[in-house]
Amino acid sequence: MARRLKCKFCENEPYIYLKEYRLFLCKEHFINWIEKYVLETIKDFKMFSKNNKLLVCISGGKDSVALLSILKSLGFKVYPFFINLGIEKNDFSKKSLKVVERVCKILNLPLYIYDVKGILNYSPFEIAKALKRDEFCSICGTLKRYAMEMGARYFNADVIVTGHNLNDETENLLLNVLNWKLTYLARQGPVLKEEKGFKRKVKPLFKLKERYLYFYVKAKNLPFLEEKCPYSIGASRYIYRKALNFIEENMPGTLLRFYLEFLKKAKPIFENLFKNEEEKKLHPCKRCSYPTSRDDYCLICSYLDKTKAFFEKRVSKKEDK
Amino acid sequence: MARRLKCKFCENEPYIYLKEYRLFLCKEHFINWIEKYVLETIKDFKMFSKNNKLLVCISGGKDSVALLSILKSLGFKVYPFFINLGIEKNDFSKKSLKVVERVCKILNLPLYIYDVKGILNYSPFEIAKALKRDEFCSICGTLKRYAMEMGARYFNADVIVTGHNLNDETENLLLNVLNWKLTYLARQGPVLKEEKGFKRKVKPLFKLKERYLYFYVKAKNLPFLEEKCPYSIGASRYIYRKALNFIEENMPGTLLRFYLEFLKKAKPIFENLFKNEEEKKLHPCKRCSYPTSRDDYCLICSYLDKTKAFFEKRVSKKEDK
Repeated sequence: MARRLKCKFCENEPYIYLKEYRLFLCKEHFINWIEKYVLETIKDFKMFSKNNKLLVCISGGKDSVALLSILKSLGFKVYPFFINLGIEKNDFSKKSLKVVERVCKILNLPLYIYDVKGILNYSPFEIAKALKRDEFCSICGTLKRYAMEMGARYFNADVIVTGHNLNDETENLLLNVLNWKLTYLARQGPVLKEEKGFKRKVKPLFKLKERYLYFYVKAKNLPFLEEKCPYSIGASRYIYRKALNFIEENMPGTLLRFYLEFLKKAKPIFENLFKNEEEKKLHPCKRCSYPTSRDDYCLICSYLDKTKAFFEKRVSKKEDK
Repeated sequence: MARRLKCKFCENEPYIYLKEYRLFLCKEHFINWIEKYVLETIKDFKMFSKNNKLLVCISGGKDSVALLSILKSLGFKVYPFFINLGIEKNDFSKKSLKVVERVCKILNLPLYIYDVKGILNYSPFEIAKALKRDEFCSICGTLKRYAMEMGARYFNADVIVTGHNLNDETENLLLNVLNWKLTYLARQGPVLKEEKGFKRKVKPLFKLKERYLYFYVKAKNLPFLEEKCPYSIGASRYIYRKALNFIEENMPGTLLRFYLEFLKKAKPIFENLFKNEEEKKLHPCKRCSYPTSRDDYCLICSYLDKTKAFFEKRVSKKEDK
């Protein structure tokens, strides 16, 4: 007679099989397992404590929804923070915001919104246009880092927390290794300490595969946005991710080992290379106080000045006609 | 009207398209291109000169057949060297030897055979049995390194040359990176200098994809053995190779950049780590003179002693009955 599969910790039917841990778990014990696992990660990597105010970046995707839910369950002081980038294609930003609002309502948490266009006067799309930049993604990335930092200051948060998972992190690590980008290898990791006017940044989900976060969010019955940003599609990173997933499927546990061994054995070596390099001198931007090494205004302020000039010129051209 | 594709260097129809070099080449110009490319690699990496005697290891596979043919065409002093491992499964060693004999006849070169069983009294299979080792491949690898070294000494060759291609090398590099094997990363490369009683070992094909070597051997009409060693099948390395091929297909040139950037930027860092480690003191084995750090006999001699004892015991047991 076939033996009925059951949860490792109770008599219930398994909800999921964690291949590399050889664990069958029911829905409830899977939720417990994930939350405990994240708590251990937070402690092991000295990310933050219950006293810290956490700016939790939430985009509406499964990872950040899981992050917020896990940190709330664990009793941390969370400040959900949504950056509205104003991406109109596919109504992406609108849909994201709607999901995030629903999640916060379910979790009974306030939501803090950084509206890029409202605060900075221009959307990332307008800035990219003014700067004649094709790679929209890098402008967006710069603006997101800026918004997080400014958000954390505004709420006097100690730590910026993001939902990067194991697939994100190893994809990035492979990219840096295939090109041997030594300066990036020296900095990559789940904890970026506070320094030179920047807040501490941490990634408590970095040991978890995205598949598990998907099943966590499903188990918790939380809404999330399945679609990706329409501009991120077709990026070459997807190739690395697929290659790594292929290895992981055939040899479960490889991704986690790759990343943890990197942190333990290789990263210190790369860090050491740049230890004695002259530290970049940063000072607050004269206008917005964001840390910068530039003499006048920071990179974002200079972006905004250029964008302003670009659009004013267009307006005056139109008026001339 | 559709434009007829033609060779980059003549009016002939293309035989092959080299994607990452954006080159269409006819058969003849492809052969020329490959040989010139290998010559440049040999010079760039200071592998050997026309004065050197080269022990060229040939297994009968496409890579080593290509290697022998290219080095002969370029006018180097080659000594084709076949290691007969006595692999009986699928008649593998017999078939390999037959192919190698045909290749040498076509290229009008003598063939030197190192018959493991004939010289050492035992086949790798018998040694693995006596040592109760499951992983046959590692015994075979050890014996091959031993045979090459002893072969090079016998013919007074200066350099041992093997046919490792770009896929072999990057597969190995990825394996070492995924596990962050720092000592291996410090040593991996296309040139292993002569030291401590060992001959110099080089890999002139390391910049070429196996696909191109396949087409080279086909273009030259040389026989080669398509089947792999029956014991190597199913090895986990195959997973890494497939993952890398997937990346390369989508982003041609990635493999070569991965390896060359490693050699330029990362390898020196890893080498430096072990620079100050106490050098392993090697001296010639008292019996066979192979370099060893062991007090009495070298690893291979000790293997052979154990194997002898194992089989003598079995014989005496049988006689007792």
